[in-house]
Amino acid sequence: MSRPKPLSGFPEFLPAGRIVEQAVLDSLRSTFELHGFASVETRAVETMESLTRKGEITKEVYVVRRLHAAEGEASDDLGLHFDLTVPFARYVLETSGHLAFPFRRYQIQKVWRGERPQEGRYREFVQADIDIVGEGSLAEHHDVEVALVMLEALEGLRALGVPPVTIHVNNRKLAEGFYRGLGVDDHLAVLQRVDKLDKIGPDAVRGLLVDELGMAPESADKCLALATITSADASFVDAVRALGVRNDLLDEGLEALASVVRAAAKVAPGRVVADLKIARGLDYYTGTVYETELEGYAKLGSICSGGRYDSLATDGKTTYPGVGISVGVTRILGVLIGRGKLVASRSVPTCVLVAVDSEDTRDAAMAVASRLRSRGIATEVAPKADKYGRQIRYAERRGIPFVWFGEGSVKDIRSGDQSDADPDTWTPPASDLRPTVSAG
Amino acid sequence: MSRPKPLSGFPEFLPAGRIVEQAVLDSLRSTFELHGFASVETRAVETMESLTRKGEITKEVYVVRRLHAAEGEASDDLGLHFDLTVPFARYVLETSGHLAFPFRRYQIQKVWRGERPQEGRYREFVQADIDIVGEGSLAEHHDVEVALVMLEALEGLRALGVPPVTIHVNNRKLAEGFYRGLGVDDHLAVLQRVDKLDKIGPDAVRGLLVDELGMAPESADKCLALATITSADASFVDAVRALGVRNDLLDEGLEALASVVRAAAKVAPGRVVADLKIARGLDYYTGTVYETELEGYAKLGSICSGGRYDSLATDGKTTYPGVGISVGVTRILGVLIGRGKLVASRSVPTCVLVAVDSEDTRDAAMAVASRLRSRGIATEVAPKADKYGRQIRYAERRGIPFVWFGEGSVKDIRSGDQSDADPDTWTPPASDLRPTVSAG
Repeated sequence: MSRPKPLSGFPEFLPAGRIVEQAVLDSLRSTFELHGFASVETRAVETMESLTRKGEITKEVYVVRRLHAAEGEASDDLGLHFDLTVPFARYVLETSGHLAFPFRRYQIQKVWRGERPQEGRYREFVQADIDIVGEGSLAEHHDVEVALVMLEALEGLRALGVPPVTIHVNNRKLAEGFYRGLGVDDHLAVLQRVDKLDKIGPDAVRGLLVDELGMAPESADKCLALATITSADASFVDAVRALGVRNDLLDEGLEALASVVRAAAKVAPGRVVADLKIARGLDYYTGTVYETELEGYAKLGSICSGGRYDSLATDGKTTYPGVGISVGVTRILGVLIGRGKLVASRSVPTCVLVAVDSEDTRDAAMAVASRLRSRGIATEVAPKADKYGRQIRYAERRGIPFVWFGEGSVKDIRSGDQSDADPDTWTPPASDLRPTVSAG
Repeated sequence: MSRPKPLSGFPEFLPAGRIVEQAVLDSLRSTFELHGFASVETRAVETMESLTRKGEITKEVYVVRRLHAAEGEASDDLGLHFDLTVPFARYVLETSGHLAFPFRRYQIQKVWRGERPQEGRYREFVQADIDIVGEGSLAEHHDVEVALVMLEALEGLRALGVPPVTIHVNNRKLAEGFYRGLGVDDHLAVLQRVDKLDKIGPDAVRGLLVDELGMAPESADKCLALATITSADASFVDAVRALGVRNDLLDEGLEALASVVRAAAKVAPGRVVADLKIARGLDYYTGTVYETELEGYAKLGSICSGGRYDSLATDGKTTYPGVGISVGVTRILGVLIGRGKLVASRSVPTCVLVAVDSEDTRDAAMAVASRLRSRGIATEVAPKADKYGRQIRYAERRGIPFVWFGEGSVKDIRSGDQSDADPDTWTPPASDLRPTVSAG
């Protein structure tokens, strides 16, 4: 076998990068659990029927079949999940009798999409989702809650060197009500065109609205004006009112969005902003929608998105409304690790290497290592009896900070300091106990 | 959408089961890292070329292709990995320039096999592997090390209620040398038949050896006698010698196995036994081989297997020998969780529910919750303002042990004890802080 090449779109980290990824995932998990979200892990495959109910998305699905499927065995009926929402909806329906609602879950798993790979866009990547799902109904304060929990989770990553984020919020009802107030019937057609604002600019969008949808130029201008409104407090309400459009659904949307922004501003001022151009394309959201910008990485697009869906799932009798938000972990880390912006202090968990000067003393070295490990200090024994100088170079190559000699002497190989030590009491500095992660 | 049915062979846990699984995976990870194993995570897919080099196993592979693959795009060239050894071998070749050898890695991931599902046999399941890989050569003491690290990892699970294990060890060279000493040319043919001992019994195996391979009855008896030898110390060497077969490779195998058993007996007496019937079927091992029995669950078969392979990977210039062992996490947990033998103390991470008596006090409740969380206490706020009695019942249903009222009163809803408390100082008993896992 010759040296294999990486598969485009299927990123894999070297051990040091994986340590960064583990630190990020551990931190996210810790925040989610502090807020009472329970972990759910679903199988990687769903039935194609379940995956293809969302129209457009089918083109991105990976189909799975057994290489030697038996005669008559249904093939091509399973696919890899492309997000964690569809599997979660299925899980809720399948297990609802065993769940207590509102059910709060987080889910950190890989998903697969057959997209064209580019920086920040992968065919296999990790998502971390939180959702709250009700049985029949779900209170609106959860729309604030999931945004704030995710903000706290992402803020928690700043200690590791991840840049700060801003969550942008809108409400589907607001835009729909506004368009209806302008006399538009097909509000989705308007939404889809306004959603192109960042890509093609306001003049082109105005052109589409007037030429393709036959909208009056002054109405098109109002749609564009709406999309430019943004505020970190409830002042956006007045800005919308000033456009002079009146509609009940618009009022409902304004009120809902204002309450989200007001509640968030109390806890995290300036970090959750109303942004009336946020549309979330063709997704299935029905109320609040979220997108998130990573400071300094606007070109990555939204690194964390979600929203409220009135019917995440329904079994005909009961409907389960939900609200959720999903962070694209690999999208962030692929770029930050790839560019050396997030680095681990070493590429191994090991804190201490116990030296072995001859194979006769390997048992004694193993005993020392065992005593260190019993107190939580990650330790390995030198793989080969060798001169101490070579063992120090071996530790250096792996980034192991301490080398232990004989029964009771330890050397910090960075400073060269060596001192007597007892394997039952010696403790490394807290910052050396485990690999740490920081901005590169 | 009507209520979906589970997919046979693709197990999913309810939230309480998932808490058990997380505790098991966290414990395994902790032990592996204490011994200096670095985490590696590989993509779920490998090229079919890489997956099908092992003959027989191809029948179990799941092929993956894009639903709407472009014209001319190669399809069916990717498959889901069926173990973590093949991907790791590929990873080592691909990244060898960045690794320090001997390279110690653990890998905890799902794998997929198109097998017929039954209890303990799944189509999607989690494996946890450790391997040590050298560049050019790898010292034999690592054969002892991986067995002892895995034993320690599995012993660590006993605190969670997992039954004890015994690791059975053999050495391929021992059996091959013995058969060659009997004048056998095709030692694999003998090995394959002796490997059926547990399934078809000694008489049937003797029949196969004599009838199919033309072996003399007394030689066949010696092969059977060899397979019955087992010992928790090096006394198996004398038992083999007593059979009167002489061969250099046999001597080499006896010495290697004796050194593994002797070294393991010093650290974990009686838990690593020489068992000369262990063959590991058609696998690619070249020296030490391991299988592991879970006490009380012999019918599950080996829950943890592995061995030494002289050439895990080679790029033509350099060969990478390795030794590794892999535990079938889902195989163990599917049975233990499914039968209620491992249970979580609750189905949510939440330790405290902060009651809300009217929506006007939700902000105050959120502030209390935030103060508790800042000290690591998982807390959620009641989803709905309601009478306290109903909120207690809500907590009961979710297994949340404590309900917080107003600014400073907390009730243990199991005992009914209620006392004044300060959200900045109150601490739950350590056993209530997180869900715990125990034997059911």
